[in-house]
Amino acid sequence: MKKTLPLVAMLVAIAAAPALAQDAAPAEAVSADVYYIFNTLLFLIGAFLVMWMAAGFAMLEAGLVRSKNVTTQLFKNVGVFGIAGLMYWILGYNLMYPGDWTIGGVIGEIFSPKTIDAVASGVVDDGYSSGSDFIFQLMFCATTASIVSGTVAERIRVFPFLIFTVVLTGVIYPIEASWQWGEGWLSDMGFSDFAGSTLVHATGGFAALAGAIVLGARHGKYRADGRVQAMPGSNLALATLGTFILWLGWFGFNGASQLAIGSVNDAADVSRVFVNTNMAASAGVVVAIICCHLRYGRVDLTMVLNGALAGLVSITAEPLFPSIFGAVLIGGVGGMIAVFAVPLLDRFKIDDVVGAIPVHLIAGIWGTLIVPASNPDTSYVTQLIGVVAIGGFVFIASFIVWSVLKATVGIRADQEAEINGLDISEMSMEAYPDFVQAK
Amino acid sequence: MKKTLPLVAMLVAIAAAPALAQDAAPAEAVSADVYYIFNTLLFLIGAFLVMWMAAGFAMLEAGLVRSKNVTTQLFKNVGVFGIAGLMYWILGYNLMYPGDWTIGGVIGEIFSPKTIDAVASGVVDDGYSSGSDFIFQLMFCATTASIVSGTVAERIRVFPFLIFTVVLTGVIYPIEASWQWGEGWLSDMGFSDFAGSTLVHATGGFAALAGAIVLGARHGKYRADGRVQAMPGSNLALATLGTFILWLGWFGFNGASQLAIGSVNDAADVSRVFVNTNMAASAGVVVAIICCHLRYGRVDLTMVLNGALAGLVSITAEPLFPSIFGAVLIGGVGGMIAVFAVPLLDRFKIDDVVGAIPVHLIAGIWGTLIVPASNPDTSYVTQLIGVVAIGGFVFIASFIVWSVLKATVGIRADQEAEINGLDISEMSMEAYPDFVQAK
Amino acid sequence: MKKTLPLVAMLVAIAAAPALAQDAAPAEAVSADVYYIFNTLLFLIGAFLVMWMAAGFAMLEAGLVRSKNVTTQLFKNVGVFGIAGLMYWILGYNLMYPGDWTIGGVIGEIFSPKTIDAVASGVVDDGYSSGSDFIFQLMFCATTASIVSGTVAERIRVFPFLIFTVVLTGVIYPIEASWQWGEGWLSDMGFSDFAGSTLVHATGGFAALAGAIVLGARHGKYRADGRVQAMPGSNLALATLGTFILWLGWFGFNGASQLAIGSVNDAADVSRVFVNTNMAASAGVVVAIICCHLRYGRVDLTMVLNGALAGLVSITAEPLFPSIFGAVLIGGVGGMIAVFAVPLLDRFKIDDVVGAIPVHLIAGIWGTLIVPASNPDTSYVTQLIGVVAIGGFVFIASFIVWSVLKATVGIRADQEAEINGLDISEMSMEAYPDFVQAK
Repeated sequence: MKKTLPLVAMLVAIAAAPALAQDAAPAEAVSADVYYIFNTLLFLIGAFLVMWMAAGFAMLEAGLVRSKNVTTQLFKNVGVFGIAGLMYWILGYNLMYPGDWTIGGVIGEIFSPKTIDAVASGVVDDGYSSGSDFIFQLMFCATTASIVSGTVAERIRVFPFLIFTVVLTGVIYPIEASWQWGEGWLSDMGFSDFAGSTLVHATGGFAALAGAIVLGARHGKYRADGRVQAMPGSNLALATLGTFILWLGWFGFNGASQLAIGSVNDAADVSRVFVNTNMAASAGVVVAIICCHLRYGRVDLTMVLNGALAGLVSITAEPLFPSIFGAVLIGGVGGMIAVFAVPLLDRFKIDDVVGAIPVHLIAGIWGTLIVPASNPDTSYVTQLIGVVAIGGFVFIASFIVWSVLKATVGIRADQEAEINGLDISEMSMEAYPDFVQAK
Repeated sequence: MKKTLPLVAMLVAIAAAPALAQDAAPAEAVSADVYYIFNTLLFLIGAFLVMWMAAGFAMLEAGLVRSKNVTTQLFKNVGVFGIAGLMYWILGYNLMYPGDWTIGGVIGEIFSPKTIDAVASGVVDDGYSSGSDFIFQLMFCATTASIVSGTVAERIRVFPFLIFTVVLTGVIYPIEASWQWGEGWLSDMGFSDFAGSTLVHATGGFAALAGAIVLGARHGKYRADGRVQAMPGSNLALATLGTFILWLGWFGFNGASQLAIGSVNDAADVSRVFVNTNMAASAGVVVAIICCHLRYGRVDLTMVLNGALAGLVSITAEPLFPSIFGAVLIGGVGGMIAVFAVPLLDRFKIDDVVGAIPVHLIAGIWGTLIVPASNPDTSYVTQLIGVVAIGGFVFIASFIVWSVLKATVGIRADQEAEINGLDISEMSMEAYPDFVQAK
Repeated sequence: MKKTLPLVAMLVAIAAAPALAQDAAPAEAVSADVYYIFNTLLFLIGAFLVMWMAAGFAMLEAGLVRSKNVTTQLFKNVGVFGIAGLMYWILGYNLMYPGDWTIGGVIGEIFSPKTIDAVASGVVDDGYSSGSDFIFQLMFCATTASIVSGTVAERIRVFPFLIFTVVLTGVIYPIEASWQWGEGWLSDMGFSDFAGSTLVHATGGFAALAGAIVLGARHGKYRADGRVQAMPGSNLALATLGTFILWLGWFGFNGASQLAIGSVNDAADVSRVFVNTNMAASAGVVVAIICCHLRYGRVDLTMVLNGALAGLVSITAEPLFPSIFGAVLIGGVGGMIAVFAVPLLDRFKIDDVVGAIPVHLIAGIWGTLIVPASNPDTSYVTQLIGVVAIGGFVFIASFIVWSVLKATVGIRADQEAEINGLDISEMSMEAYPDFVQAK
């Protein structure tokens, strides 16, 4: 990694977009009303595409855990998505946009009439409906929480996990996101993270990392003789489906993060974002295939899937400025990370069931740090400050919450429950009751 | 339920949208052409999202039946969707919009040129293309039929079921829907059902209820000693996937039922609908989790999935007027219904394999009746009249059709076929032939 | 087939759209900027919908192969999609649009600044962003490659298959597609293929046919006693899901191939395309059900799924001009093809694992040849020339590539590997390791 980074940065810089559209005010030919409608429509399309990523995480994780933990994993994904919706409304949105307070939460809505419901004519000047912005932002909060559930799978108890989700979506995510997207101090400094390589993905990854450390590895994963026990996922068709779902949803995640499509320049920029997003994922796939061969002499499908996702995470910090060639380089390095970071984690006995830490945390940091190679308005120092600040805050806050949960209600299933599968101990419900299971 | 209803109504009323956008004619800044294009685009996006719900029902039901009935259930879902498309064209659309007759059906298209094909310049004044309206409406008809197939699963013969679908999509649905959406007598009375809590969901539920009664319960479901035999679904990953698909599709179902996005007010309203739809589903999830714990001391994943769906059905009658808080209350009661209505059905020995009756029928009625708590232009009496009229018509008509089918071709697989699974008797084709099945 | 063709052509002609919208320049009421944004948005929606078809092929094929080959099939689908993205950028796009060269490929982007990145104000006159066009076209290239992988499944080695994909997506597809969509000689002749019944689907089908011939049938498929050994797919739920995904994606495939939605006429036309696309698929389903009964006395779910897909492929050459009745006839014949062409292939011992040749090749040709029945600007002779030219080129080029691969690296897994499953020999990774497999 150390040697490739400067080389890739140089190549990305060479390949940076040579004649980027100048940002312009909406052309005269687009009226304020039409501009508003287009932008609102972009947010709405983005919202339903990012919502769909919740299904992607659910399928990816259900496919990568063993069959005895599938019901639990599915439930966690549904529960997380439900909780994120409520918490982001009750607390998150207003923590994230502190000067705004347009969404009231339970108390606010009863006593204060200023909610998304208030659409007066003057609001046209905002350029989009507040409701469309709220639902789009809500989906990013939910995505952050979905990332965590895969890493801590197969040994965490369900209710402590849901309590962590309450804190993550209601407090931790909104605070760090406000530093940038709430026009906070990172934004003032010039930090840049287009759609959230760090604000969403590395944040989810840091929360997951803290959870994995506090929780410990699965029983039998790291054996006394130093070998790492493979615990293959039970349904690679679901894992592949989940990856394709996430790839699809990412067009909304990155594309709608342009925040506008009501001008010619914005429409062209959203298109560039679509192209670069897809090319980074393609490069992640192909590079992961090659790296698998070089390192293991065979292709591991789950690493290829993670290669696609790591390519997507990598380009998320800056999908607009790079040329296609730059996007391919950025995503390709993501594909390398997906393959090479797994043994690194194993060396530290960090048990990440689905590989979310390489994909979301490491590739997220990589994508954030490489932004200045293509975007001339950013600096490597500022990007590093942003990553360290957010990473430090999220990791420490998460570590504290996990530790408090561990010390109070307990977070880990007992060993017998873990061996028999959480679906029995936590849910009393098998995912595939009609099928005879091996062992 | 009796005690919660008035309380919730009061709370919803308190929380009703305090400053709703006044409806206005398209602002001058949006030309008639642009207005037409935006609205058409909304219908088209809505159409493909609602089409996707057909996949959601297929996966949900395939996951909730036992593995020996999966091929049959998949086939029914594909068949229903194909039949609905043809029947709504041949008969349904013109029954539903009797003053219109723009879609010819087989005969009409040959002999009369007035079809969706005729797009003359004057049509711009309609505000949307007739084809986009037709395809959007068609998907609602198909959804109604999809609801039925889950309830009657695991013991119905395939072809009688498809014949019922022909009548439901070609005649029963279009007639009751015309009372409201065809500007019929319910519409004249002031009945309000935004996207079809009653017109689509309760209608599907009433047709399913009639089917379940005429068909009887599955062999062994209600035992001689009074206990209810659990028959767990074979693939909870598919069931969860189906739920997420439906949740996604619902953004089109409710969002595009605003029928316009070509003005600032409409765009803001569609956004509100998106927000409320999502919040009701989130509340359905969280309330179902809590209710499961209170009642059973453990979480049943299928009830949580049904909680999400019941939340969605509940908000469908009025996703525009409630505040977020109102939507959370409405959807939360839906989540309660999903948990508490199941034993109620069992008491009457109504065997509803996937829980479609609580989700679509009971939550659909709840959502329709609570509309006046937030929408000042409606009344509880009118809403009740609408529910009773539609419910009575659909239930009686369906009961007659099921009974005629029973008396003529027969609707029930024989007991041996039911025990061995319909996939052998009806389809001669296993869904998972490579896997060893339990028992 | 021989007898039905002229009859259907006559009926389609009778039912052709009687009062089709005259194409007009964008009305004055739509400014050039708004026209550009609408069209770009259509391409972007089309792109993500067609991207989703990659997941559809993956699920369809994973469901139709035996469980011992599922990981391999999933990997091929992910690999194909990654490779197609890179190859279409490096080579394909510029081969397909030779006068254009706007996307640079690796070399071009470093040394020549003229890429999608260059969005100057004058570009508004193009009517859409070049990036949105690129990503939409890329997805068609990827679809072509996805079609091949199903036919050659269960006995092909993975890496030769990926090498074939490199050539198909980088060279073969772009060359034949340039003849029509690159304003080449077929386009000059008046050949018409709206969204690619021949350019995409029959092309994929011809490449698959050549592969199946060079590769030979699976061991044991065609027995010495002349009987055909059934090798049922391992997961019909996934196959059904894949079919619904493809159906959904097809709204983007055909709908966005109108290439514009920025005028009232275009919006009405896209709506017509949506309607006809759906009706052809519905007819494919219902006709396949009927044909199955007539021929086999029972319904085969996989044939019904293929009936839907064949209906979709059939209408793809001309989804705009036919009336709904015409679309039903065209798609219905597709459904017949899906049922009746399978034994035909078996007679020639062409082993097509998923039925892609009937669905994509034969129905693709059917759809292309029937275009003149509804589109008055086309002729049967020109359509036939196009099919023969493209078919000849693609088949011969593919045959050569497959043969070279066979003679050099080898394309076929050895018999033991085939019997034990490619997931062991090619991937060392089972798709469903926790489940006990039959046999």
